[in-house]
Amino acid sequence: MKISPEGDLGALGQGMDDGSFLRSVERLRDGVDRRLEQLVPDADQAPLELGAAVRYALLAPGKRFRPMLTLLLARDLGAREGLAVDSACAFEMVHAASLILDDLPSMDDAGLRRGRATTHKAFGEANAILAAVGLLNRAFGVIAEDQGLSLDQRIAISSALSDAVGFRGLTAGQSRDLDRRGRTLSNDEIDLVNHQKTGVLLVAAAQAGAIIAEADSGACDAVGEFARRIGLAFQIRDDLIDVEGGETAGKDLGKDAGMPTLVTSLGVEGARAVMEGYLEAAEASLRTAGAGQGVWRYVQGLFSGRKAAA
Amino acid sequence: MKISPEGDLGALGQGMDDGSFLRSVERLRDGVDRRLEQLVPDADQAPLELGAAVRYALLAPGKRFRPMLTLLLARDLGAREGLAVDSACAFEMVHAASLILDDLPSMDDAGLRRGRATTHKAFGEANAILAAVGLLNRAFGVIAEDQGLSLDQRIAISSALSDAVGFRGLTAGQSRDLDRRGRTLSNDEIDLVNHQKTGVLLVAAAQAGAIIAEADSGACDAVGEFARRIGLAFQIRDDLIDVEGGETAGKDLGKDAGMPTLVTSLGVEGARAVMEGYLEAAEASLRTAGAGQGVWRYVQGLFSGRKAAA
Repeated sequence: MKISPEGDLGALGQGMDDGSFLRSVERLRDGVDRRLEQLVPDADQAPLELGAAVRYALLAPGKRFRPMLTLLLARDLGAREGLAVDSACAFEMVHAASLILDDLPSMDDAGLRRGRATTHKAFGEANAILAAVGLLNRAFGVIAEDQGLSLDQRIAISSALSDAVGFRGLTAGQSRDLDRRGRTLSNDEIDLVNHQKTGVLLVAAAQAGAIIAEADSGACDAVGEFARRIGLAFQIRDDLIDVEGGETAGKDLGKDAGMPTLVTSLGVEGARAVMEGYLEAAEASLRTAGAGQGVWRYVQGLFSGRKAAA
Repeated sequence: MKISPEGDLGALGQGMDDGSFLRSVERLRDGVDRRLEQLVPDADQAPLELGAAVRYALLAPGKRFRPMLTLLLARDLGAREGLAVDSACAFEMVHAASLILDDLPSMDDAGLRRGRATTHKAFGEANAILAAVGLLNRAFGVIAEDQGLSLDQRIAISSALSDAVGFRGLTAGQSRDLDRRGRTLSNDEIDLVNHQKTGVLLVAAAQAGAIIAEADSGACDAVGEFARRIGLAFQIRDDLIDVEGGETAGKDLGKDAGMPTLVTSLGVEGARAVMEGYLEAAEASLRTAGAGQGVWRYVQGLFSGRKAAA
């Protein structure tokens, strides 16, 4: 998990010291936060409680990991500055929607998320469900209306997003996740659930960056493979945090107790080794894509920090 | 609410006797049903319970009113046969999703819909919510991947759909609907709720037909206005059925008792007069669009029949 300066990775971050790099990442994230504010309904557009629930769920402080994948990969692959912001925001909307749904009483029945009351605890279940549906829907609207992108690009991103959320993606993953409780799954089955619950949206977010940079289809595939591997690594990381706890986890700990994960089947050290393997493979995919000094440096930063990232 | 044979309405249906016309409508609807079957996941693609919930909700017998609006308007305005089928199906998917959500325990808490158990009663709440989210998502995917349409058309329909579901559309209408219980609303406020809950999706479905037929923007607007008025008329019709009952209503009757409607504020006869006014205005919009012998004949048939239509 080292950056090789002699590699063929993209230029971003190369020659930047850590402070400058972190500030450039911070600027991108601030840009996402500002744009998210603009893209969600004002109080006068949506019913009061629904609008408040949407803003509560979407504008909560967060890493903006999916937007950062889109933005950094677009930049690493040569897209014009700012071109990827709306697509990046669309992926954050879908992520926020998926968190609202995951926490519902009929799903994980969680009371805390990122250290705050979950959306249904704060605004009631009906408004939480409508906020999630509204956010998913808005994501497609934002992509369709993105005048900076060609029609081709908008259709390609929209299609990738729909695949990611669909019946082989997030909705399938969540359904499988609910179904697996108390059952013994093989490691392959665990990987499938993890990939569908987390990975597919990361893949689409990463590929959106490549689409916006007009990368060829080989690079687009490789970037997706990079994201898939990062997603699997992050899931293991989350499971490790769930077992080991930590002051920064910020959500109900032990919620997943009894649910099979790679940590329960391989133990902490075994799971950590698998995670490292995914990270190395992810870096290799990035090299294949001919991209990624910036995004790789960013991902390394997340894994070396203490916080849960996904 | 009469068809004037000397008007400038489109050609479909003109010269067709009632039997031929009904058979042509039936053929269109059968085409929608067959295509819906193809567009939803097979058992091997989605998790078993989720796939079953999706199919249960989407493939239940129904009028396919929104698809018929898209198909008949596309045909009345001169689109090539078959070109509008996938878009038509996308609107049915969104409609099915909205019904699943409306019926949830945290919303209307309904046990029956179209004479069958509601989706959450049959498959559990989590799978019902995921089915609804999956159907909305799939609608956008179907539109994005519709190779028969130009990129422009796909983006325009996708954008119209997103507006219809968004924070001034379905999600807003549902939130307002939940919020109004037991309160006294003005007739204008009731119209807003009805429009957002039902009308906006009809508007988008109708406009999709016009977009597919490459109608000019004036015709597109007029077709939308036609659908908006039809939507308001249908809502009053549904409220009348809810008050008067009837063996064909097929859902929990009296569920809306205590909720303000035009029927409660104007009485049965007053509400019926308003409904007739909307229908006349709808026909006028259709004339402005230069479209609609077929769609108007179809709508007339729905209003003269006994069944709830929306």
